[in-house]
Amino acid sequence: MKVVALAGGVGGAKLADGLARLLPPADLTIVVNTADDFTWHGLHISPDLDTVMYTLAGLANPETGWGVVGDAFLALDMLGRYGQETWFHVGDRDLATHVLRSHLLRQGMTLTAVTATLARALGIGATLLPMSNERVETVVETDTGDLSFQEYFVRYAWQPVVRRLRWDGLDVARPAPGVLPALQAAAVVVICPSNPFVSIGPMLALPGVRASLRAARRVLAVSPIVGGRALKGPAAKMMAELGQPVSAVSVAQGYADFLNAFILDRVDSAEVPQVEALGVRPFVTDTIMQDQAGRIRLAQQVLKLAESL
Amino acid sequence: MKVVALAGGVGGAKLADGLARLLPPADLTIVVNTADDFTWHGLHISPDLDTVMYTLAGLANPETGWGVVGDAFLALDMLGRYGQETWFHVGDRDLATHVLRSHLLRQGMTLTAVTATLARALGIGATLLPMSNERVETVVETDTGDLSFQEYFVRYAWQPVVRRLRWDGLDVARPAPGVLPALQAAAVVVICPSNPFVSIGPMLALPGVRASLRAARRVLAVSPIVGGRALKGPAAKMMAELGQPVSAVSVAQGYADFLNAFILDRVDSAEVPQVEALGVRPFVTDTIMQDQAGRIRLAQQVLKLAESL
Repeated sequence: MKVVALAGGVGGAKLADGLARLLPPADLTIVVNTADDFTWHGLHISPDLDTVMYTLAGLANPETGWGVVGDAFLALDMLGRYGQETWFHVGDRDLATHVLRSHLLRQGMTLTAVTATLARALGIGATLLPMSNERVETVVETDTGDLSFQEYFVRYAWQPVVRRLRWDGLDVARPAPGVLPALQAAAVVVICPSNPFVSIGPMLALPGVRASLRAARRVLAVSPIVGGRALKGPAAKMMAELGQPVSAVSVAQGYADFLNAFILDRVDSAEVPQVEALGVRPFVTDTIMQDQAGRIRLAQQVLKLAESL
Repeated sequence: MKVVALAGGVGGAKLADGLARLLPPADLTIVVNTADDFTWHGLHISPDLDTVMYTLAGLANPETGWGVVGDAFLALDMLGRYGQETWFHVGDRDLATHVLRSHLLRQGMTLTAVTATLARALGIGATLLPMSNERVETVVETDTGDLSFQEYFVRYAWQPVVRRLRWDGLDVARPAPGVLPALQAAAVVVICPSNPFVSIGPMLALPGVRASLRAARRVLAVSPIVGGRALKGPAAKMMAELGQPVSAVSVAQGYADFLNAFILDRVDSAEVPQVEALGVRPFVTDTIMQDQAGRIRLAQQVLKLAESL
């Protein structure tokens, strides 16, 4: 059963990891958001690709969800001595990834090829695909001005009020090679519990992706909103600031045109009728992935639900 | 008294540091070999500039002479996980230097400007100049083929037999801005105890440098050969393989056309008459710089000798 997962950062990476531990590597493709990518001291950083890659390789820092376990920050400290900005916390092991990716990109490799090379070297069997090889840049229009996503997210700890989201480059970007074919061949597409605006949103906006999802046999999503809050990051705060009700069903609504089933947490079971009203099959379970066992359990339920559709 | 020091790696950096602790910052210019520069995973590395810079900033690893004290090698380890070559030992703090230098160079800054920026940030008052802003590359022609200097020096631990040295790019390279004016304004030029072939040699071969030294008021050199051996690195082995007698006076001979005085170690005092025969004034002292005090002591003797000329 060919499965495609669409993932952003930490939450998406966890479910993708659960799926990777259940499925034969050849059956799993993970399409990852790259609209958070940015340039840092001349290096190309792909935060979501890194989070997914480190998580699947068993290298992710379990305390933060991002970065490499046991990493240190000597290079960052040295950049600080040189008077450089250090608000983006790149660890020393992590820095190696950025140096190598940037080097391979400058040599003319596509982000798709670089991602495959890095993932293979770290022993990842599943296929990891960037959403696009073209640069798409999330711009967060806030009450304090336009911010790049990492400025908004890391530097200002998502405190500015979001007025609008914009994606520079999205008008000319295409899905990376392999993305649409994977979606078209998929028996199941899983929308991971990632931020629907800044992680899943840019992927859906790429030409052909939404149409492929509408045509797909089974599309399931796991709610990133639990009890009116995001487990991690600004999804709930953004939702409120963009004038939407902060709820799981709000997420389902945004996906309703292609969604077959929606997995929401027990604490949100009151929203089941609203999900049903969207024509989407609801499934209630514990969605919080505390540990590796939790990831596998949720992935099992996703796959079981998919088979029942 | 304006002093210009020509320096390569560890030995040169030590004497330059001694001079920096004695002279007002505005009076000291250190011109550094860049023919060892190379590209490593897409980053521009200037090993001699780094060694001089770290040494003057008090950051050098006292055990190796190169690299940053207390550095770790997590990024290098990670590059190894990615299947990359790791024979060149870049520490994590050191990596920050290469990332930043490469970034600034790609933004269009010259190596001269980058060097000034980095040195200033590390609190170095003396003027640090790369020998050239054009790329000059030492190629070591050996019994096992042509090697880049770092391959020869680090990867193969200078074990291959040297047949000839070659400098790619030297035919079109010019001295960096500031180098010739500094030499022309200098009351004293000090040739540091650096490898005469691969550290000092490329500088002397740049157009105008040798002529400026011939015209200079006082040029002193400190022998990098002590008791028929190099304190560090392949100078003595190269000398033998290139068919020269392995001795301090061999070094003086190579500089004889511009040298006024030559400082050699007590163990080589038997060579004094040979130095005199070159028309160069010999000065015998302890040249081995074991510690900071040793650097200052030798620098004091260099300056005292210069005043006596």
